[in-house]
Formats: sequence, structure tokens, C-alpha cells
Amino acid sequence: MTVDLIVSDATVLTRTEPAEAGYPDDPARRRATAELLEHHDLGVADGAIAWVRPTGSTPEEERAGARVIDGRGRVAIPGLINCHTHSAMTMFRGSAEDVPVHSWFNDHIWPMEVNLTPHDVALGARLAIGEMLLAGVTTFADHYFSMDEIAKEVLASGARAVLAPTYFSSEGPAGLDRSAAFAAEWHGAADGRITAMMGPHAVYTVDDADLARTARVATELGVRTHLHAAEGMFQTESSLANRGVTPMQVLHDAGLLESGVLIAHGAGITPEDVQWLAPVADRIGVGACDKVYLKHAQQSTTPVRLLHDAGVPVGIGTDGPASGNTLSVLESMRLLSLVEKQKEADATWLTSAHALDMATRQSALTVGLGDRIGALLPGRRADIALIALDGPHLQPLHDLAAALVLSVQEADVRTVLVDGRVLVDEGRLTTIDVQEAIDGLTRRIPQLRDRSHGRRIQDYAP
Amino acid sequence: MTVDLIVSDATVLTRTEPAEAGYPDDPARRRATAELLEHHDLGVADGAIAWVRPTGSTPEEERAGARVIDGRGRVAIPGLINCHTHSAMTMFRGSAEDVPVHSWFNDHIWPMEVNLTPHDVALGARLAIGEMLLAGVTTFADHYFSMDEIAKEVLASGARAVLAPTYFSSEGPAGLDRSAAFAAEWHGAADGRITAMMGPHAVYTVDDADLARTARVATELGVRTHLHAAEGMFQTESSLANRGVTPMQVLHDAGLLESGVLIAHGAGITPEDVQWLAPVADRIGVGACDKVYLKHAQQSTTPVRLLHDAGVPVGIGTDGPASGNTLSVLESMRLLSLVEKQKEADATWLTSAHALDMATRQSALTVGLGDRIGALLPGRRADIALIALDGPHLQPLHDLAAALVLSVQEADVRTVLVDGRVLVDEGRLTTIDVQEAIDGLTRRIPQLRDRSHGRRIQDYAP
Repeated sequence: MTVDLIVSDATVLTRTEPAEAGYPDDPARRRATAELLEHHDLGVADGAIAWVRPTGSTPEEERAGARVIDGRGRVAIPGLINCHTHSAMTMFRGSAEDVPVHSWFNDHIWPMEVNLTPHDVALGARLAIGEMLLAGVTTFADHYFSMDEIAKEVLASGARAVLAPTYFSSEGPAGLDRSAAFAAEWHGAADGRITAMMGPHAVYTVDDADLARTARVATELGVRTHLHAAEGMFQTESSLANRGVTPMQVLHDAGLLESGVLIAHGAGITPEDVQWLAPVADRIGVGACDKVYLKHAQQSTTPVRLLHDAGVPVGIGTDGPASGNTLSVLESMRLLSLVEKQKEADATWLTSAHALDMATRQSALTVGLGDRIGALLPGRRADIALIALDGPHLQPLHDLAAALVLSVQEADVRTVLVDGRVLVDEGRLTTIDVQEAIDGLTRRIPQLRDRSHGRRIQDYAP
Repeated sequence: MTVDLIVSDATVLTRTEPAEAGYPDDPARRRATAELLEHHDLGVADGAIAWVRPTGSTPEEERAGARVIDGRGRVAIPGLINCHTHSAMTMFRGSAEDVPVHSWFNDHIWPMEVNLTPHDVALGARLAIGEMLLAGVTTFADHYFSMDEIAKEVLASGARAVLAPTYFSSEGPAGLDRSAAFAAEWHGAADGRITAMMGPHAVYTVDDADLARTARVATELGVRTHLHAAEGMFQTESSLANRGVTPMQVLHDAGLLESGVLIAHGAGITPEDVQWLAPVADRIGVGACDKVYLKHAQQSTTPVRLLHDAGVPVGIGTDGPASGNTLSVLESMRLLSLVEKQKEADATWLTSAHALDMATRQSALTVGLGDRIGALLPGRRADIALIALDGPHLQPLHDLAAALVLSVQEADVRTVLVDGRVLVDEGRLTTIDVQEAIDGLTRRIPQLRDRSHGRRIQDYAP
């Protein structure tokens, strides 16, 4: 089979396998595995992975005409997946620091978002895509306003995205209709790089009737739904106090779990909620964003072990850069692995291989692309990050999985491909002018920060 | 005043001020401050900072002959200080993963350390110094074996270090004598870049008589002591159960607090311990290493708020790379700030300015160099890290302190000076060949990991 492009003589992270469920007492039985093949070539044809073979085993005629990327001293990993973000909020990065979440929404972000223009969103998304590609993130699940603008930036950049236009019930039917129209227009666009989801904001800003209508529309359109639910135990407690059901039961009762859902955060998911989640584990996932839980002093974090044992995929997210400050999945993966060890009081839990499984296979399932990305296996899309291993902070190399989770730096990501196209070439973006976006947003800072209008786009009262 | 070197037109982090003690209810009164002066020049003469002035205000004759480093688009910060590490353990990075601390010592590290040679330590330290310089760390407080080898690497590299040779009472008097001899030889060496400390391993591996003798010797030599104490609440509880006193009282009773001490971790320091610590706050400090607490699933972390209110400096450390996987103070600072917010259930606690105060002023005090480093003020040593601000992950720039704590990447550190000498020039080390160290250590991996001898250097039973 002839190929267009070959990554030659790299170490290849082909696939991960999850840890055994049920949390057995024997730590060895809980170990996830990451298959890391040294001295392998990876062939790409028509944007997909054609084969992964030992270096030197491919006949010369099959290599003829292919572009060759030297993989020596590098590890090829599946392109990272950011399972929950608000990409365009790069424009607000650092604008609402050291405040609790209630103030973050009501005093800072929702008043500033009154000032948004579609052009701001376009620039914010462009900057975000550049930041993510440089850090090896090839797919992001986005939830924001002016989603057409973001889709155009995805189209132009060559990245992959899962896009959900945000709406509130306070808008009346217009928001839901807009989200449905976006899905009808963009689902499967950009040669399949764009996946649409419905985007109700949250279970406390979209009412039950609209959630149920969302589920029906999503099923008709053949898309899933991405929304905030059970962001923390405080939200679950509020839901129980106000209406006697958990947010997960709200999703179940609305038919959303049945139609497929990406749950942002889920830190307030309870053991009782497993009854709703386990039966639909093949079409749902939870995006964990531990950095923002800590930054906002939230006491609950996504219950990774509970969901793991229930067979529900948990992917890695950054949340928006106005709360999480970066869009780095590497950083989020590292932080989650450390937080989980302490939370479970078990240093043998959440090994580096397990963290890699979450960042690749489980994240792909979480965003509904489990058969297309998340592993470097023949037939999967050629979304690949090549990471240099020569940095002194990675050496000497006793344990590559640990190096990728606990030592790696974003700048070690040297070359990044999506659909086999080189979007980062030796640390340089090939398709995006981020400086233009930075300059444009920097000029807009005074207007973006203006809160003198005294309004906000919505009230936060979860 | 003529100068040798000028950093021109940078933003300069000159000094930080601590937050008010006593944890007042009003968050505004708890705010630390970081003075960040835009468009300033920084002049260096004879290895010290001569002045910090607005760009354009220095007469041409005072600039004549000086090397000029372009600071545009960059922030100059005081060189970072790693307050607790075992630098040479780069050689064991990733060799003891996903194990609790008891197993880490007894099953992995202390058996492997039987295999150490002085040359291994030299190579490990050289690699560590390279890694740290590239991440803006100009001073490190080290605690390890074969300290003469490490001192020689410090001498050759141009870095600054605070060196404490490790000893146990199980060695008899030889270890303590060796540490004293090292201090006599090296304290103040390398043009003052080397500071010695006495290095008893811990309050549970060095007995009371040796701790008391350490205090006497340290006082005679005019040095402080660096040791592990109260690493976690488990160690404090063990001390209380076995002998009825806390580790801090052990240090007090031995005379060590009086003679000046760098306490590694101190995560088991109790409110009652403040009676011992507050009176000597001018000569002690605590090195907090939150990454390893989380990684080893330890439930207690350094009580930053308690120590802050007692006026005891708390600096940032990485611990050794065999437990913490990196030597990045930027990473440690970020993680500590996030962990503290969650632990105190207060998003307004440990602001980015507070974190910067810990990483600079408080860390300098912690390693006993509060009058020489930790701020960019006239008279301080010219230990400077220049950080580029053009990375997409930092932009647009709403809040520079937040960017330095929550968004920055190690690779943003472009140029690093110690005593006014350029040790990292646009991302390249100028004095160290780390590849030689990497190659040498990589060849040694099979021998270093050999545990077939069935021995260990010491038993861990805190």
C-alpha cells in the first residue's frame, strides 16, 4: 500500500488499555497499559493511518514518493483531545482571578460577555486553536457563542473540533433553534473534521421542557449534546433541595442520556447516579477539568474511580482559559493524575498509563469519536503529536509513560498532524496567524472589560 | 555608574510584598503585591544589580561598553530558587512510579542508592543544573551524597547552590564529620555562589545527640542546617506516639532551630509548633514540595497559611526528581497555589502575587540568602530570568502575575543570568554539556537499577 507520509523510526504509542474495573485490591490488576513500540514507522494515506510497522520492514516501493518525517528520539502519540472548553475565552484569560465561582460568573465573566462581538469570538478561537495545536491538542470540544465563527476558524486551521453552540432558556426557543441549525449546517463539515453537538448551557439555565426538546432534536439530527451538569457537589445538592432529583436524573428524565451526552465536569455525580449512567455508557462521557476545581476552591472533583468502575469514559478537559488560564491537555492530565492519587489516598491509583488512556482512548469516546481518533491504529484518522524526548527534564528515560504524564513540557511537542496534514512543523504553526489574533484582542481589552453597562448575559444561581 | 550589562526595556519584577498576616476577613487586606515596572532597564555591575531605571533615562556615557540584552516583550524576574531537592536523583527519574512512600524508599530508592558512584552523582547533578537553569532556577538547596562532586558541578556551571551533605546516625560520627568538613571547605566558595549547610537526613534517622552536635557544629561554622522534618502528619503522629514530642520540638530541643534551619516539607507542622518556630522566624524557613505530596497520596501538605500567619517564610521546592519527576519551580509554584486554594476552601487565598512572593522573597529567606537574592533591587546579586511573553498561551495579557503563575511554560524562559553571567542565552546553556551527562547516565541505567544485592543504604521507618 502506497502512502503519502511516513513518520519514521519513532516510538509509537499505538493504543492504551483501561485498568480493570471494580478496583480490585491487587494494584497489579488495576494497571492500565500503554503500548509503546520503539523503532516503528507509521504510514499515512488519505488522512488515515495505513500501518504501523517496525522500522526497516517496509519495501522501498511502498515508501516511494512519501514525505518522511524523522521520528528519531521522538514519541508519536495520538493527538490530544480537549474534552471541554470555551475556546474563544482566551480573550478573557487572566481577567477574573482569585474569585469564587459565583463572583466569577456574576461579577466578571457574564457582565463582560455582554460586550462580545462575533469578530472577538473568531479571534479568540483562532488564538486558542494555535495554543492547542502547539501543545499537541488536535481535537477540542467547544461550548460557546457565535459558533459559526469558531467553525470557520476550525475549517481554516485544519484542526478537528466538536462544536456545541451555547443557549439558555432565557432566550426563548431561539437559542435551541440556532443550535439545531448549526448542527444541520456543520455536522460532518470540513471533510469530517467538524462534529456538531447541541449546546444547552446547563441543567439549571435550561428548563426541563427545553432539555427534552434538545434530546428529540439531537436524535433527529444524529448528534449528541454537550452541557454543564453536576459541576460540583454544590450543584447536585441544590438540585436535590430544589426539586428532589440529581442533575443526572434530570438528564435521564429529559431523554438526554439516551440520546448521547458529553457531561462537562460531573464532579457532583453520586454513586446513586450510576443507575442512570451505566446503561448508556456507550454514548456518554464526562470531561474532567481538575485545574479549575482547585482554582475555584471547589471541594468536589470528577469522581474518576466511580465512573471507571461503572464503565463510563472520563476524558480530560481544560475548561475555558478565563478560568483554567491555559488550554493544555498535558497540564490537565498531569494535574488530574496527582489530584486523583491524593483524593483516593492511594499512590498506586491512576498510573501514568491510566492517565494516557484517559487522554486518548477515553477522551475520544467522551467526545463521541471513539472509532476515529484516540489511538494510532490502522484506519484511525492520522491525528498525531510528535514529542521530542531529548529535553533534560525527561532524561534519563526510565519510564516513558511517566515522562509523558509527569515530566513533559508543552514545548516538547514538535510536530502535529490532523488528518495527516502537518499543522505544526518543528514548533511552528503552518496554517494560523496567531499574532494577528493577539494584536486584535489586545486592542479590544478595554472594551471587553467594560462593565459600566451594568448588565450580564445571564444570572448564575445553580 | 558604569555597568557591564544592561537588560533593556523589559518589564521588571523588582520586589514582592507579603500578604498581611492574621488572615483578615477582608480578602483585600490579605493581598500580596508584586511590583512590575514596564519599560525599565536593569543595569548590572560586578555581578550585582546596579540600578533599575525607566528605559531612556540612563545617560549614554553610563551605557557605553555594556553588553545589552534586549528585554522587549519580556519580563525579568528574580532567578527562581528551588528550596529543597536532591539534584543528582535525576538519574532515578521515573524509576519508582506509582508506589507509596514507604515502598518508594525501602523497595526502590534506598536499594538502588547502594549502587551510586561519585561519578554518577556528578553526572546527575550536571543534568539537574542544566534542567533547572533552562527553567529559570538559578539557586537550588541540595541534600545528597558525594556533595563534593555536586559542588564541583556548581562551580563549573556558574549556578548558585546551598549544599548540605546527607548523613545518618547509622554511619557513626563519620557522616556528621564529613558534612562539617564540607562546610569548612566550601562555604562561600565559587565567589560566594556556594553556601554550605549541615545535612542530617531527618529527625528519625539522626538521633538526638547527633542533632545537638549538628547544631553546635553549625553554629561554630556559621552555617544553617537543612533536614527533613515533619514530612507529613504521619511523621508527627509517629513522633508523638513514640516519644511524646513533635518533630519541631525535637529540632528546638536539639538547638537546631536556634542555630538556623531549612525544614524540608514540614507538612506535619501543627498549630502548637508555632511556639517553637515563631521566635526564630528570622533564621528558619520551610520548603514546600506539593507535587510529591500528591504523587505519594499524602493527605497533609505544608501548612502555608499557619506559617504565613506566624511569620515563618515558606519557599518552593521540587523535592528530588525521583519523586517529583521534574525540577521546575514554575510547576511547583503553580501546583502549590492551586492546592492551597482548594485546601483552604477559599479562591481568594494564595493569589498569584502571593505565589510569586513565595517563589522569590520567601524562598530567598528560606535558603538563608534573603539579603542577596529573591528581588531585583540595587545591591542584590544579578540572578535574573528573562521570560518571553509572546507565547499564545500567555496572550492577551490581562494580568501578568497570573500569567507567570498559571499560564507560563518553562520554555518561555529565554535567558538566565547568575551573578550577571549569562548561563542560558536564548534557550541554550552556555556552560554545561548536558548531553554528556544524559549519555553517561543512560549507559548506567542497568547497574543503577540493580537490586539483586538485597541491600539498602538505610531503613525507612519514620
